[in-house]
Amino acid sequence: MSVTISHEDIEALCMGSVFLATGGGGDPYIGQLLVTEALKKYGPVTLFPLETLPDDALVVAVGEVGAPSISLEHLPIGNECLEVVDRLEAWMGRSISHLVSFEVGGANSVIPLLAAAARGIPLIDGDGMARALPEAQMMTFAIEGVKPSPAVAVDYSGGAVYFDVGDAELYERQLRNLSMAMGGMVFTAEHPMTSEEARRAIIPGTISFALKLGQLLKQHSGNAAQIETPLSALFEASDYGQFKRLYTGKVVDINRRTVGGFDVGEAVLESTVDDSPPLRLAIKNEFLLAEIGDRVVASVPDLITMVDHETSAPINAERVHYGQRVTVFGIGCPGHYRSEKALKVVEPRVFGFDIDYVPIEDL
Amino acid sequence: MSVTISHEDIEALCMGSVFLATGGGGDPYIGQLLVTEALKKYGPVTLFPLETLPDDALVVAVGEVGAPSISLEHLPIGNECLEVVDRLEAWMGRSISHLVSFEVGGANSVIPLLAAAARGIPLIDGDGMARALPEAQMMTFAIEGVKPSPAVAVDYSGGAVYFDVGDAELYERQLRNLSMAMGGMVFTAEHPMTSEEARRAIIPGTISFALKLGQLLKQHSGNAAQIETPLSALFEASDYGQFKRLYTGKVVDINRRTVGGFDVGEAVLESTVDDSPPLRLAIKNEFLLAEIGDRVVASVPDLITMVDHETSAPINAERVHYGQRVTVFGIGCPGHYRSEKALKVVEPRVFGFDIDYVPIEDL
Repeated sequence: MSVTISHEDIEALCMGSVFLATGGGGDPYIGQLLVTEALKKYGPVTLFPLETLPDDALVVAVGEVGAPSISLEHLPIGNECLEVVDRLEAWMGRSISHLVSFEVGGANSVIPLLAAAARGIPLIDGDGMARALPEAQMMTFAIEGVKPSPAVAVDYSGGAVYFDVGDAELYERQLRNLSMAMGGMVFTAEHPMTSEEARRAIIPGTISFALKLGQLLKQHSGNAAQIETPLSALFEASDYGQFKRLYTGKVVDINRRTVGGFDVGEAVLESTVDDSPPLRLAIKNEFLLAEIGDRVVASVPDLITMVDHETSAPINAERVHYGQRVTVFGIGCPGHYRSEKALKVVEPRVFGFDIDYVPIEDL
Repeated sequence: MSVTISHEDIEALCMGSVFLATGGGGDPYIGQLLVTEALKKYGPVTLFPLETLPDDALVVAVGEVGAPSISLEHLPIGNECLEVVDRLEAWMGRSISHLVSFEVGGANSVIPLLAAAARGIPLIDGDGMARALPEAQMMTFAIEGVKPSPAVAVDYSGGAVYFDVGDAELYERQLRNLSMAMGGMVFTAEHPMTSEEARRAIIPGTISFALKLGQLLKQHSGNAAQIETPLSALFEASDYGQFKRLYTGKVVDINRRTVGGFDVGEAVLESTVDDSPPLRLAIKNEFLLAEIGDRVVASVPDLITMVDHETSAPINAERVHYGQRVTVFGIGCPGHYRSEKALKVVEPRVFGFDIDYVPIEDL
């Protein structure tokens, strides 16, 4: 089944992407106008179903990398994701047959649409995270053994850096350090995949799911209490795990700094419905850990997401501010992240939390 | 006049290079054995006189970039400078006709000999600093408008990063950040030059000068008092400026940290010959500023160099330690660094010192 995305769908897709971004992933609203205009100009993009990928495909992941807060001020020109595609094709001496998103969460759900529309390269309905996570080695591409390079990064100044590196963690370190020298936010084309690799490494259906989720959020643009039942039904019918309301309250503290190319900080909420202890959300680009008092109620790789209590609009970490009334949901991650090899790179300890991962349904 | 360097000359060349390194430039003694062995295997290298460069030359600068202190522990494998040459030739699709050193000071005086010997590519007698300085935009190549890229950097892991960047300061920032992610020390091939650019941008004769200087230091391996007269005569007959003894004393304090990919710190000396106030040397890879009490006695871009009081061996900043008895010399930089456009990137203010540059002969 293929899903077509037109310029009229971009607003909903952005809402769904912010929900799945679990606080991070870069702000898609910034690129919304650019992508909407591109789809008006080039026409709608029909998402390419992973299961029909031909055997001789060359699939490449495109998107932006940096600290999400930077994307609020450091606006894209609009041609960055075309330039990385052109540069990687020239360097590899091959045409890219299909594009794929790093992550459905945040800006990286819509950026590849721009390249797909402008260059006429099919975009696969799927991604490498089914959410957002801060580092390259946390993508299912890397977890499934796809090499990060040949890869290319471009910056605001029109220059580019090309990578020949075999290891995803080393690539992440190089790219992150480089992004700090290139304005804090770069666009990359990377993780070239054969068909066999793509079928193994891509989580299918996530872009169309984000669109459906966003449409639901738009329809129920009321308060979070009304949205809970249809949201729960949507997730229950998906590849995600259990859907839970974790907390309803008011943001009473938020601190966020840009450290080492990441947004790092903590948000604290106080309940507006009962006398529960405060909820604390630890942030590294994304919301990684939710604790009510001393009790962990959700942790990475499960999703923790925040919506506005009045409008149901999802709120990413770089837009959280004092006084917001919000509801926080937790959602079990798809099975891809619950294997031993996946947990090795996405479990709470990787982020410095001294706890074992306990699936949200057991908390 | 061409000068030939054999394996028997490497020890002297290293000594001369440490003297000209003004405290920085990376430790050449680490690579001494590698280069000595290479010249034994491949035969001596005849330095190519800049004035005989053919019109169709493609000159490329090769060397190592990082915090000098790292080079003491993070030993080169020996093939890094060959790999950057091979990779840059493959990327540019052209043969490199001549190599040149970034800087005559420190390890980068001997590293290019290895590539020249093993690949049979002539090495120009000259460099881009006539000393050592910490950043790429401070090379005469950049000052004379040579673009830094196409450039390539390789690291210990066998990976490589390729640069397409027009601006030397941006390149420096990218490369420095990257080197921190690549083990703190990388090898690069960069600043490709036409003959016209090379003739304008390279400071001629510096490698053979370093050899002559090192031979003199070896011959007079006595105390620093004996060496002063012949050293002074050698520099007076060169393109360098005035030669001065600044201080004779004992190292009573040294602090050095690796910050942002550089060695940063300060050395303090107390006089062993009179009741002068202490001498303070500010370090950013190199010795940049010498003050006796409140009086500046030498500053970048003029050279500040330290030799052991007993052996006359020059001492680089990463080997300075408490209790050493040393003599500190100051030497006027060559005219290349005294133009307005050069001072814009190498004057004391660039390094955070709130003083105007005053040539050493006026201090």
